[in-house]
Amino acid sequence: MTASLGGRELAADLRRRTAESAATLTAAGRPPRLAIVVATADESSAWYVRSIAKAAAAAGIVCDVVSPTPTEIHTVLSRLGADDDVHGIILQTPLPAGVDVGDLAPAIPPAKDVDGANPASLGRLAAGLPSFPPATAEAVLALLDHHGVPLSGRHAVVVGRSTVVGKPAAHLLLDRDATVTICHSRTSDLAAITRQADVLVAAVGRPGLITTEHVSPGTVVIDVGTNPTADGGLVGDVDPAVAETAGGLTPVPGGVGPVTTALLLQHTVRAAGGP
Amino acid sequence: MTASLGGRELAADLRRRTAESAATLTAAGRPPRLAIVVATADESSAWYVRSIAKAAAAAGIVCDVVSPTPTEIHTVLSRLGADDDVHGIILQTPLPAGVDVGDLAPAIPPAKDVDGANPASLGRLAAGLPSFPPATAEAVLALLDHHGVPLSGRHAVVVGRSTVVGKPAAHLLLDRDATVTICHSRTSDLAAITRQADVLVAAVGRPGLITTEHVSPGTVVIDVGTNPTADGGLVGDVDPAVAETAGGLTPVPGGVGPVTTALLLQHTVRAAGGP
Repeated sequence: MTASLGGRELAADLRRRTAESAATLTAAGRPPRLAIVVATADESSAWYVRSIAKAAAAAGIVCDVVSPTPTEIHTVLSRLGADDDVHGIILQTPLPAGVDVGDLAPAIPPAKDVDGANPASLGRLAAGLPSFPPATAEAVLALLDHHGVPLSGRHAVVVGRSTVVGKPAAHLLLDRDATVTICHSRTSDLAAITRQADVLVAAVGRPGLITTEHVSPGTVVIDVGTNPTADGGLVGDVDPAVAETAGGLTPVPGGVGPVTTALLLQHTVRAAGGP
Repeated sequence: MTASLGGRELAADLRRRTAESAATLTAAGRPPRLAIVVATADESSAWYVRSIAKAAAAAGIVCDVVSPTPTEIHTVLSRLGADDDVHGIILQTPLPAGVDVGDLAPAIPPAKDVDGANPASLGRLAAGLPSFPPATAEAVLALLDHHGVPLSGRHAVVVGRSTVVGKPAAHLLLDRDATVTICHSRTSDLAAITRQADVLVAAVGRPGLITTEHVSPGTVVIDVGTNPTADGGLVGDVDPAVAETAGGLTPVPGGVGPVTTALLLQHTVRAAGGP
């Protein structure tokens, strides 16, 4: 009954257009270049970085993976920020113990901040000024648009208040004239609030957090969770049984994830001056 | 029946402590100094600037009012930003036609941005990093705390999504573990949402927007509106009849207003290195 709101078709379309822009830029002597700064040996992070690097190569974007020591991170970010040949910079999390993203991300110039990590980018987003939103948060909106879900005047409920997903997604939804509620671990009676949602965004990182009890008939559910399973798979924050009630549900994997990667690459060609 | 949640006592207390800090700083050869940049002849703006200047003088803070032409504003902000003797900078709105606050406010260094106008300050606030919030938004929280209103796990509904009040107030409430809903002109059935609020913040600038229909028994209502009346007075966004139902209501004038001015001065002495 419920539509599966997949992201692979949208991601492929974004990648195709990004590759066209990258080819145009490269032909003009300005090959788009992305730098990913990875400062820990975290395994799931390494997997994610490899997948971005592979997608970048396929789209014709040069991708450098830089691995500084903890004390070098700030210097490396400043150097990349000043390098005219580098157009996009991603500071991969988690960071080493004792190193704070809030201290480092301001070293990424907003014009190169393709994953919206600098608080100045978040502030510009909140103030309605041009900026790169965190790609995951933008992927939520891109999926809603791709599947024709109306937002103006509708009630969007975001579960999760992280700086990388929940908060920027709330601002993007607000900018589209949705009424927005932000819930989190301290919310009392979560289900009573989420059942009012026309659009429900689950971005907590807890498998099975959203159950049929949390969803009304017709609610469109965007599952941002990517939780590793014991057998090496991936599950979201939403119980798959929700599909029987909801008006639409994004799959995990194959929903928000591929669109996020595609948007990171799109941001990079835009930062390089592409369309 | 309803408590009147006045702000004058809190404001007086804030001003007293600020004056003590200012005296200590001045005795140490570091007199706190606030610069207000006023680029239009708007009358209500001029009244507000005079009231801040007067309050600053009373607290022992040097206050310079600077009136650049539209083309000089950016240069003046940069000069004040670089001047070690200036600790706080306010860019007064409205700005002249054709001049955009989003282009100018980034020239205010976050460390001197005592009214949180720079999008970088909003981003730092949203990311939970140290910053000066817009004083009006912080006044909402200061009043709730002063009157002992609990926030953790409660539902706060903010009506209005401006960069200077609605959005930063939402982040401050979220940071205090409230569940937060942001409503605005495109919200359908506003009353159905506001009636669910434990705390209701009205920050739209429309007299009588919030009526008894919008409020449940026990809701604490913070009225941020300051709308001029034909006879030279001031009314809020909330119909005074709401007081009969609500669990508490801030008066206009005498609620958010005096606390806002006191917080601007507190921010200035903090920017100067005071406690």
